[in-house]
Amino acid sequence: MLEQLKQEVYAANMLLPKYGLVTFTWGNVSAIDQEKGLFVIKPSGVEYDKLKPEDMVVCDLEGNKVEGAYNPSSDTATHAVLYREFANIGGIVHTHSAWATSWAQAGRDIPCYGTTHADYIYGAVPCVRNLTAEEIEAGYEENTGVLIAEEFKKRDIDPIATPAVLCKNHGPFTWGKDAADAVHNAVVLDEVAKMAARCEMINPENTPAPQVLQDKHYFRKHGANAYYGQKG
Amino acid sequence: MLEQLKQEVYAANMLLPKYGLVTFTWGNVSAIDQEKGLFVIKPSGVEYDKLKPEDMVVCDLEGNKVEGAYNPSSDTATHAVLYREFANIGGIVHTHSAWATSWAQAGRDIPCYGTTHADYIYGAVPCVRNLTAEEIEAGYEENTGVLIAEEFKKRDIDPIATPAVLCKNHGPFTWGKDAADAVHNAVVLDEVAKMAARCEMINPENTPAPQVLQDKHYFRKHGANAYYGQKG
Amino acid sequence: MLEQLKQEVYAANMLLPKYGLVTFTWGNVSAIDQEKGLFVIKPSGVEYDKLKPEDMVVCDLEGNKVEGAYNPSSDTATHAVLYREFANIGGIVHTHSAWATSWAQAGRDIPCYGTTHADYIYGAVPCVRNLTAEEIEAGYEENTGVLIAEEFKKRDIDPIATPAVLCKNHGPFTWGKDAADAVHNAVVLDEVAKMAARCEMINPENTPAPQVLQDKHYFRKHGANAYYGQKG
Amino acid sequence: MLEQLKQEVYAANMLLPKYGLVTFTWGNVSAIDQEKGLFVIKPSGVEYDKLKPEDMVVCDLEGNKVEGAYNPSSDTATHAVLYREFANIGGIVHTHSAWATSWAQAGRDIPCYGTTHADYIYGAVPCVRNLTAEEIEAGYEENTGVLIAEEFKKRDIDPIATPAVLCKNHGPFTWGKDAADAVHNAVVLDEVAKMAARCEMINPENTPAPQVLQDKHYFRKHGANAYYGQKG
Repeated sequence: MLEQLKQEVYAANMLLPKYGLVTFTWGNVSAIDQEKGLFVIKPSGVEYDKLKPEDMVVCDLEGNKVEGAYNPSSDTATHAVLYREFANIGGIVHTHSAWATSWAQAGRDIPCYGTTHADYIYGAVPCVRNLTAEEIEAGYEENTGVLIAEEFKKRDIDPIATPAVLCKNHGPFTWGKDAADAVHNAVVLDEVAKMAARCEMINPENTPAPQVLQDKHYFRKHGANAYYGQKG
Repeated sequence: MLEQLKQEVYAANMLLPKYGLVTFTWGNVSAIDQEKGLFVIKPSGVEYDKLKPEDMVVCDLEGNKVEGAYNPSSDTATHAVLYREFANIGGIVHTHSAWATSWAQAGRDIPCYGTTHADYIYGAVPCVRNLTAEEIEAGYEENTGVLIAEEFKKRDIDPIATPAVLCKNHGPFTWGKDAADAVHNAVVLDEVAKMAARCEMINPENTPAPQVLQDKHYFRKHGANAYYGQKG
Repeated sequence: MLEQLKQEVYAANMLLPKYGLVTFTWGNVSAIDQEKGLFVIKPSGVEYDKLKPEDMVVCDLEGNKVEGAYNPSSDTATHAVLYREFANIGGIVHTHSAWATSWAQAGRDIPCYGTTHADYIYGAVPCVRNLTAEEIEAGYEENTGVLIAEEFKKRDIDPIATPAVLCKNHGPFTWGKDAADAVHNAVVLDEVAKMAARCEMINPENTPAPQVLQDKHYFRKHGANAYYGQKG
Repeated sequence: MLEQLKQEVYAANMLLPKYGLVTFTWGNVSAIDQEKGLFVIKPSGVEYDKLKPEDMVVCDLEGNKVEGAYNPSSDTATHAVLYREFANIGGIVHTHSAWATSWAQAGRDIPCYGTTHADYIYGAVPCVRNLTAEEIEAGYEENTGVLIAEEFKKRDIDPIATPAVLCKNHGPFTWGKDAADAVHNAVVLDEVAKMAARCEMINPENTPAPQVLQDKHYFRKHGANAYYGQKG
């Protein structure tokens, strides 16, 4: 089933150690086949240098395993919710990448301090609250996804324009139009998180980039009037 | 003697430079044969690229050399005490890894700020006090081990659940079910120490992760109800 | 056209990932043929491992493409202004290198705290203000160059002696006598930015290096009385 | 002349980029032949990947070139003074390694916060004051050496036990029993500088390691009662 998608998800998972985003098995990538309503995800706790494309696990949008020799990632239920709630995303990444996780542990949104951030992520990266004991008990991974989706609705954030979130005391999720794009955004997020921490160290009174500059950079890369790259 | 264990201890020692945990010869790994009451440890001050499996030294639980061409690690007496006091551990690692050592030099416990920590280490990583002049004089390395064991008892910490400690103004020890697992925990510890320092920089008023979240992550990986990985 | 210059610009662009100055496509290098009044620049948004020398784009000093299959860098208009305004420079680099960009995001000049800085960059690295909404609207990239040139005039800074600038909430530009020299200065700038941030962390009351020491180091490497290296 | 020593100095210079201590040509190593009263040093401003053993320059203890096709390092006069003043040292290293240079730029001694430091460097690493305008004018590089030697005498520091110094707003010098040992101490110094900065970040009220612990570690590695390694 879904051999091409398994290959893509495998390749995207292998980018995580290449870009220095994971230690040991601390990360997972998935991608969805929108027509079939199925997604492919990394198995749980398998070392990256032993992974093979055929080890990828196929799940339905309730997070149930449909095909695969291994258990899917322990975060599968979170991925399933995000695919249900964020209709047009094609791939999702979860890591414990060090700088983004440090912001998550600090429980703070990452302000948009510059154009590196604005080029890819519109506005601050939101940090969602801790789940309550009841929410953890009732379904930790699923409720993580529910909380993310609620927070985006509550704050009126478009998940296509802001493809990243921090879960308090945990770590980041990013997404994109496919698995590789979701990894791209995970790399951007950690770089942005690093520079945001450092510029606050350099200037503790720092304020976000002017909205007009954020808009300029975001929209020179995205939307009808984009002119960055070769397709604009 | 203990050729298989020597091979494992050699291989685990060689992981220390691979994971960037040591500079020069600043680290050592040992592992115990519980039945024989003997442990195997790296020789003192030998460069990693010259080490061979047969160079590993066999010691008894008093820290006396039983077999080997070289002197055992200068920290051998600390390892011996920990094997006597922490009955079910199989391997021990000592390094001067930069982030964990920075916390040790700061003389602070590492609070559990997130799930990366909670996945592997239950609760804060304790930092033990300095030895007194008398304790140093009477047996520095042995009393280092005695102090660690006393601190775990005093604070009622289970060394199996919390496989790491910091020695004030010195550096970390970690342990695990075997030599490789102890190295795994040394890698986790340095990553956790790095992110804890950074999240305090990002949020100086930071507080530990909620206990219920710490419990959730620790117990989804450990114990009877674990469901992470392929054995759950 | 300008095959030799294309080769040099290509080679200089490839140095950016080698020195760790760029993530993905976040950087560009150009160099000018002063006689012809044309410059060669990297195409926009093409990945480094797919770049070829013949992909480099030739532009005139108004920033118009003169030859090339690709769109030139989105920052081309900034380069064009700098070539017009800073008469004797031969190459320009723009990156989002992490430490220099952190200072840019912090909106601060980088003080000259030591001889590493003084060896290559005379005085503080200036950080120019944000463009206004009107300036962004009227021509963001061109006005970025105009603002840099105005700031150097206003502060009476010699761009040959101070071959680097920070654009607030954006990132650095550096230049030099040719493309390779501009990259050299980009490396220097990020190293200097890193050490400046760290020495402020170590000593929050830090003050710049004495002017006489800055002069000594700058002039032992530059000008008629230089004696560093093999040409002095 | 001194072919063996040239080979050693060449090899030691090549360790600087290997250990990440230098950017471009920012470092130099020398070693002395005590009997002949001559030392061998890296040429000035030659790139590391073009260096050859025969490029090393022979100088006398006044810092005059005795043999060599190239100009010696611009810091040669500093090396010459240190060989005259610190009688039993065999090799000297100067770098702009990032963490040690950050402390130098901050103008602070590096306190001994832990055993990593105490294992190799007895007591704080001193930071000498800036030279005056007159001292710079009269002979910058020579007076740098004179100032270092005076500071060690004034503070009654034994240069054999404390083989490292910081020059304010400039960078570190280290030394050792030969060129390789001096490089070893340069690596130790940067690691120690890094951890000292980080432990102050983690605990701004940090205090040095107890003297009794510093002594224990220094003397288990050095002197008549050493027992670290294979020769104790």
